[in-house]
Parts: sequence; C-alpha cells; structure tokens
Amino acid sequence: MADVVVLGQIGRDLVLRVAELPAAGGSVAASERRELLGGKGANQAVALAQLGVPVVLVGVVGDDAPGRDVLAQAAADGIDVSGVVARPGTPTALLLDLVEDGGRRRLVEDVPPGALLTPADVAAAGGTVAGCQVLSLQLQQPGAAVRAALERASRTALVVADGAPEDEATRDAVLGRADVIRADAAEIELLVGRRLSGPDDARDAAAQLLSAGPRMVALAVGEPGDLVAWRAGPAPGAAAGAGEVDPAWADGEVLVPRLGGSTVDPTGAGDAWVAGLVAALRGRGGPEEAAWLGAAAAASTVAHAGGRPSLDPAALAEAIARERDRHGVRIPSGRG
Amino acid sequence: MADVVVLGQIGRDLVLRVAELPAAGGSVAASERRELLGGKGANQAVALAQLGVPVVLVGVVGDDAPGRDVLAQAAADGIDVSGVVARPGTPTALLLDLVEDGGRRRLVEDVPPGALLTPADVAAAGGTVAGCQVLSLQLQQPGAAVRAALERASRTALVVADGAPEDEATRDAVLGRADVIRADAAEIELLVGRRLSGPDDARDAAAQLLSAGPRMVALAVGEPGDLVAWRAGPAPGAAAGAGEVDPAWADGEVLVPRLGGSTVDPTGAGDAWVAGLVAALRGRGGPEEAAWLGAAAAASTVAHAGGRPSLDPAALAEAIARERDRHGVRIPSGRG
Repeated sequence: MADVVVLGQIGRDLVLRVAELPAAGGSVAASERRELLGGKGANQAVALAQLGVPVVLVGVVGDDAPGRDVLAQAAADGIDVSGVVARPGTPTALLLDLVEDGGRRRLVEDVPPGALLTPADVAAAGGTVAGCQVLSLQLQQPGAAVRAALERASRTALVVADGAPEDEATRDAVLGRADVIRADAAEIELLVGRRLSGPDDARDAAAQLLSAGPRMVALAVGEPGDLVAWRAGPAPGAAAGAGEVDPAWADGEVLVPRLGGSTVDPTGAGDAWVAGLVAALRGRGGPEEAAWLGAAAAASTVAHAGGRPSLDPAALAEAIARERDRHGVRIPSGRG
Repeated sequence: MADVVVLGQIGRDLVLRVAELPAAGGSVAASERRELLGGKGANQAVALAQLGVPVVLVGVVGDDAPGRDVLAQAAADGIDVSGVVARPGTPTALLLDLVEDGGRRRLVEDVPPGALLTPADVAAAGGTVAGCQVLSLQLQQPGAAVRAALERASRTALVVADGAPEDEATRDAVLGRADVIRADAAEIELLVGRRLSGPDDARDAAAQLLSAGPRMVALAVGEPGDLVAWRAGPAPGAAAGAGEVDPAWADGEVLVPRLGGSTVDPTGAGDAWVAGLVAALRGRGGPEEAAWLGAAAAASTVAHAGGRPSLDPAALAEAIARERDRHGVRIPSGRG
C-alpha cells in the first residue's frame, strides 16, 4: 500500500538566471542554466522523498526523450513512478523559469493539453490511489481528474488539496472531501468567491472554508506569511485512531511568518510547503508543527534558482527551532 | 574538396512564443514551442543546404544528448558535420528565443566557454578548411580560432566574414584576407571605430573598409536596409578565372531595402543574409545579385519564429523579381 500519492504536473524545468532581462530586440548571456525534473507534482514528490516519505507520483509525461529523462530522474530521486502515464503524441511539458537578480521571476509554461491528467489516467492508477494513506492533489489538473481521484480515495485517507478547483463541481467535491486545503491569494479568491483585504479577512476566509468541510486550511496571505487554521476533532486521516481526540487538534490557528533570508526564486515554494505539511501530518505531527515544516521547506526552496527542492530534514528542524525562538512562538508540548 | 565551410556556433534553439511577457512574479502560457538545431553557424549551414550548396560545418557541441540530437538534425538537413567537435564536459550551447506578438524578441544565450572553437579545433578540421572554395567565418567565435582558419584558407578561396572581430589582431587579419565583410550597426562601429550617423555615413564606412582590403562590404544600416558596396576587379574567389575582369564587378553599390512583410522574429536574419550572399557568389553571381539573394533569404527567415531558415530557392527568385520591380531597381544585364 502506498504511503503518499501525489497527483500533479510532471515536466522539464529549464531555469535560466540573468542579471536582467534585455529590452525587446536585445540579448543577454545567462549566468546560470539548470535543466531538471520539474512541474508542481514532481517538485512536491521530490520534496517528500527528501523528507523520507515513500511517495508515488501520478501524472503525465510525453512519450519522448525528455519524458524518459525526467522519469529516470524521478526514479533516481526515490519516487515511485509506476503511476505516471507516458502519453504518445504529446510533448513533455516545459516550464521555463527566468530569474533576474533580486529574485524577480517570470514563468513561461508550455503544458500541452495531453500532458494533463484525465479520469482514465486516474483509473489506470486506481489501486494506487485507492490504497494510499495520504492523497495530495494539485488542483491545477483538470477538474474531472481531480474528482476521479477524490472518488477513489479511501474513506480513511488524509486528503490534501493545493490550489483552486477549476469549476464549481470540483470545488464542491474538494470542499466535501479534502481534510486540508492550501491556497495562495489568487486561489483563495476562487475558493471563497471574493478578494481578501488582509490577514484579518484571511481569518474569515479560513473560517468559511473550515465550516464547508476541511479540518485545516493554510492560506498564503503575502508578506505576513501563512495563516494556518484548524478545527477541533480527531487527527484527520488514517494515521490517527478513529475517534481519538488529539490535543494538538483543538481549535486553533497560527500565522507562520516567511522564514529564511532573501528570495532568489519563488518557484516551488508552494510545492515544498505542501510537502512539509504532508510529511509532518503523516508523521503524526499536529497542525502547527505541519505549518512550520511547510514554511521551513518553502524557505529552503526559494533560496536557490529553480523549483526543485533540496531539503535536509535535520537542517529544517534546526531552522524551525531557531525561527520559532526568534519569533517568540511557543513550542507545543510533546512535539518539537 | 569541400565547397563551402561555415565556421560558427552550433547549439539548441528553444523558441517560445507568448502574447506578452509577464511582469516580474507572473507567469504566462506559451502559444508555441519549437526546439531546433540552432546557433549562427548551424543556421547559416542549414540555409546553404536549402539553397543547394554543399556545406561543411565547423563548430563545437557538447558530448551530451542534446549535442547528439542537434548533430543528427544537421546531418538530416544535408550538412556535412565531420568538422564538428563534440567536447566532453561541455554542455551544448542553448539559445532561448523569446518572441512576443508583434515581433518583439529577446534572446537569452548560454554559450559555455567550451562550446566555442579553439585553434586546435580548427587544426583538427584543417584539411577541410584548407581545401574549401568558400570559407564563411562568424566572428563571434574567438579571435584565435578565426585567425587559425584564415591562416589555413587557400589563397584562391573566397573568404566571407560576418560580424566584428573580437580584438585588433583578428580585425587586422580579417581585413587583410576577407573578400567580403558583413556587419550590422553595432559591428560596423567596432570595425571602423566610430558610430554611423546614417546611410551616407555608411557609404564612408564602406569606402574605408574597401580600402583596407575586402572587395565587398554589406552593412546593415537599419530601417533603410543593407548598403552593399564593392570595388572593381576580377570576381573574388576560386570561382572566377584569375585576373579575368567581370563586368558585374565594376565599382558599385546598392541599397537593398528590407524585403517582405512584417517581422515575426528577427532571429537568424543575418545568418540567412550571409547564406544567400555566399550561394549567389559561389554560383558566379555578381555582388548586386548576391545582395538581393541575401535580402530575400533574410526576409523569408524573419517571417516565422525561430532562427532556423526555411528557404525555397524558387520562391526566393520570385520574391526578388517582384521586389526589384516594386522598388524600381534595374535588373543587371545577363543576370537576374
């Protein structure tokens, strides 16, 4: 039985750093080039593998040389790629990450329609999805594929959803089944139907989402950081004994600040954040611990060019202890 | 014996079209992606092959999968790649061509130092260089490699140089041996040591260059087009009988306008221009005919995204006849 299944994009990341993009008509020499396994699904799976979590990736590549290259890289990263479809006639998605000095980043994405998951792809990976303990869904995938995965997830699986559903049917299905939802500013707007005015408004949005079904929401609210809120009950997901009340899961919230130094490249921050959260919850950590591990994983990832994470669990634990201390946050008893 | 040897960059071209580049922090979906054999040397060699000219390419790729891919593509294009070095430990050069709607183009180039020609590479291709009838040199390559090629060229070879030499020794060697020099505005400045103020000034620059050695100069002077000037004497290069006076090679000049419709992507214009010129001169065409074929090849190439040419000799001949007529240019007797 799979521990964690990540359902999301797989692609080639081309990272080019330049001092500054030229004006139209101009040219510039790149100061760095990296060509990597990328895509939000793959980046999250890489992060989970680096955190020691057995992970199965479900997604689509092309039946081409770049597709074979990225799958080989995923396998070398310790990811189970048995759920990946190599689609004939579709080029593997390409994600260009143009990074100027100072952390100014532009993405140019070429994700062919064939490189997105279909309900049939999810059905083909059916046993994997049905048997997993944690199902992590990236909502940039088509709504029909997301709904197919939600239908197949076992009743006891912990379901984590990242992003905004592409249509109302998918939003209802996600809110009705997901245990945890993470969203950035633009995605929150799509989830709750209005624009947030600030952290206080984020509290209202979090309450609105929690009342719709999820046990935990994590909202990226910009400069202040991430507002994470949860409601009382047993720890969600199969890892907890059914009905057992966990003191870490009393009603609560925490505003976790952006950690680390200056941002070289924001790409991959959200994927690393979700991976940290999943790894912590799977390890029976509480919601606050999950929020801090997410924030630390994101901070590590934005400190270099490219969305591929490079996580060291011991270094993350140290960073969390240091930052919690610096920000005057209490360390929940019994956890760390 | 090789007909034409092109010495210049070989690389991977990644062409991404977008409606508009996003602001920093943003992302955009590409409307088109093309991944091609590219680099100025390869583009010129492709153009020559399309014009029916046997061509040998001398340049450097990495000893990697992309390098093997682009060499296979060059061979499929009919280019002799026996003069290409596959350098271990060097990634194949990558040229990103970001094209916005309206023909606004930005290049991001990653040309590792190892992907440039050395004198030893030129020596390794020595027989090819020494035996060719036409040597086409791209002056973006290191000066030492350019000088090594000039030293090896036979006395009767037609030598065409494109660009600006990187140092004074190379400039002296180029001016002392090249039969034809082509340069754009920035390159002219480096060649003659001052900035051009307009087409009249370009005439002075052309006269200055012609007095320094070359028989023919082609200067891209911006909106008006290309100023092409030549001085009297036998047709240059091995194609002409030594000492025989060719009436097409009396002192002369022509300002060839920019041909064709609107520009989708200016990448590759200069490479196609030089290929047209080389093909015409090799076919015993005069300087004016060479200028028109260059301009028509360039116009064809800027009409699509990416620097790779797609030349049809019959279509170019038709375009030239039509445009000469439209611009009221006399068709030189006995040619056309």
